[in-house]
Amino acid sequence: MKIVAFVENGARHLGIIEGDQVVDLQAADSRVPDDFPAILAAGDMGRLGDVAKNAPASARRPLAGIKYALPVAKPGKIICLGLNYLEHAKEGGHQRPQHPSIFLRVTTSLTAHEAPIVRPQASVTLDYECELVLVVGKRMRHATKSNALSCVAGYSCFNDGSVREFQRRTSQWDYGKNFDKTGGFGPWFVSADELPPGAKGLKIETRLNGNVMQSDNTSNMMFPIIETIVDVTQGMTLEPGDLIVTGTPSGVGHARKPPVWMKGGDTVEIDIEGVGVLRNPVVDEV
Amino acid sequence: MKIVAFVENGARHLGIIEGDQVVDLQAADSRVPDDFPAILAAGDMGRLGDVAKNAPASARRPLAGIKYALPVAKPGKIICLGLNYLEHAKEGGHQRPQHPSIFLRVTTSLTAHEAPIVRPQASVTLDYECELVLVVGKRMRHATKSNALSCVAGYSCFNDGSVREFQRRTSQWDYGKNFDKTGGFGPWFVSADELPPGAKGLKIETRLNGNVMQSDNTSNMMFPIIETIVDVTQGMTLEPGDLIVTGTPSGVGHARKPPVWMKGGDTVEIDIEGVGVLRNPVVDEV
Repeated sequence: MKIVAFVENGARHLGIIEGDQVVDLQAADSRVPDDFPAILAAGDMGRLGDVAKNAPASARRPLAGIKYALPVAKPGKIICLGLNYLEHAKEGGHQRPQHPSIFLRVTTSLTAHEAPIVRPQASVTLDYECELVLVVGKRMRHATKSNALSCVAGYSCFNDGSVREFQRRTSQWDYGKNFDKTGGFGPWFVSADELPPGAKGLKIETRLNGNVMQSDNTSNMMFPIIETIVDVTQGMTLEPGDLIVTGTPSGVGHARKPPVWMKGGDTVEIDIEGVGVLRNPVVDEV
Repeated sequence: MKIVAFVENGARHLGIIEGDQVVDLQAADSRVPDDFPAILAAGDMGRLGDVAKNAPASARRPLAGIKYALPVAKPGKIICLGLNYLEHAKEGGHQRPQHPSIFLRVTTSLTAHEAPIVRPQASVTLDYECELVLVVGKRMRHATKSNALSCVAGYSCFNDGSVREFQRRTSQWDYGKNFDKTGGFGPWFVSADELPPGAKGLKIETRLNGNVMQSDNTSNMMFPIIETIVDVTQGMTLEPGDLIVTGTPSGVGHARKPPVWMKGGDTVEIDIEGVGVLRNPVVDEV
């Protein structure tokens, strides 16, 4: 099941994608919550298919032309992994890590599919990073390898847009990872049952103005989904709607000679096999 | 004005503290929102005093015996400063920094006044850190030195409880700063008008089982409140209910010889002049 969030008459809606159409779930049944944490907490994903099946023709919209919103509007937390693909660790001058490097993003740093990624006034060093993101479906603490995947509701694409100058001005990366509207998230949510277990074996790619900048496969994560969930739930309780952003492969702009930065007028795409293409125009902050 | 959040019959309430009593704002007027972001976003702080003044006797409770809740239940973001007091930077082996080190906490890491701080199964290296925390009252981006304080609604005490082993297992501190229920926040919210501008000149102290472990003054921040707001709003939009946790002075447990760790049965207090005393029992995770 692919679920897309969109804005209609100023209100947030969720829709199930069927071919080139969207079944507007709130138009089909006004009792359906408009955000994932409420749906996931109620364990209600299955019911959405029934709502769509019984939806009147008036609840159908063409997918083309909708105004996309964030798949999860306000994730409780956004846990991000650094250095999860060996070639990316190497290009940044790092050894093979023993543990995932965990940092965090905040909601103000997110931007939806087709909405702008903003290059800030404060620095030109805005970089792209293609990443698979998982959406947590139920509470989990102290996960084991055998039950870890049971807390994953589904997946989406993420562009972990990074202002490198601020990421590296101290030892802590968070500021450079949290400029307003630098993190692309979308285009939609794909339920876990549509992908291989742990979302392994998926081609993942970044294209900047049509040129392939990063290209790898999710099987090359050093800390795959299961191991990551086991690791983070040693300390943190995962809750419905939380995100885990699983790290980027090699090919980022700052490691190139000369470096490549995103700038106003660019278009950046994150393409993950079986998930979709997240596309954002880049604009300069005015 | 001191505003306390508490739980009564399973529901969150806010109350204004008057001496040894609390005026329950929801009992006085059911239209008053039970969380700060809604109150602050409406610019409604002033009205709360009127609600309290007109409250019936039945809305008054003794302060002793209330079950404290987090002053802000779900902050949109929790921005934390590392290495903001020179002596603390030195005890950790750091030079005087050129920029604040910014990291983040998430809501699952918080715990209210008198609720337990939890030492996790995963590590015994649980440390205390007394910090002044500011609560954002209105949206702010690109603050200047002259308008920065206009976005501060008030202050509270914070214990930036840190699992040092996880803080230091990679270069990124966030994991060690985000174990469940390690971050004390409270006991209440003090409006900015009750403290000196920028909350300067306040004695700040940690006591562990009654012994003074940290003692300093908020005037010794290397990046004071105004400069911090100017810095973080270069990149991030502050929103009502966001928190900025302003760093800890020297005397932390991990820098002592031998190190001092918090453990089940301990009581830790953060005492900030003019704000209050945040007290948490420590329990071991079972």
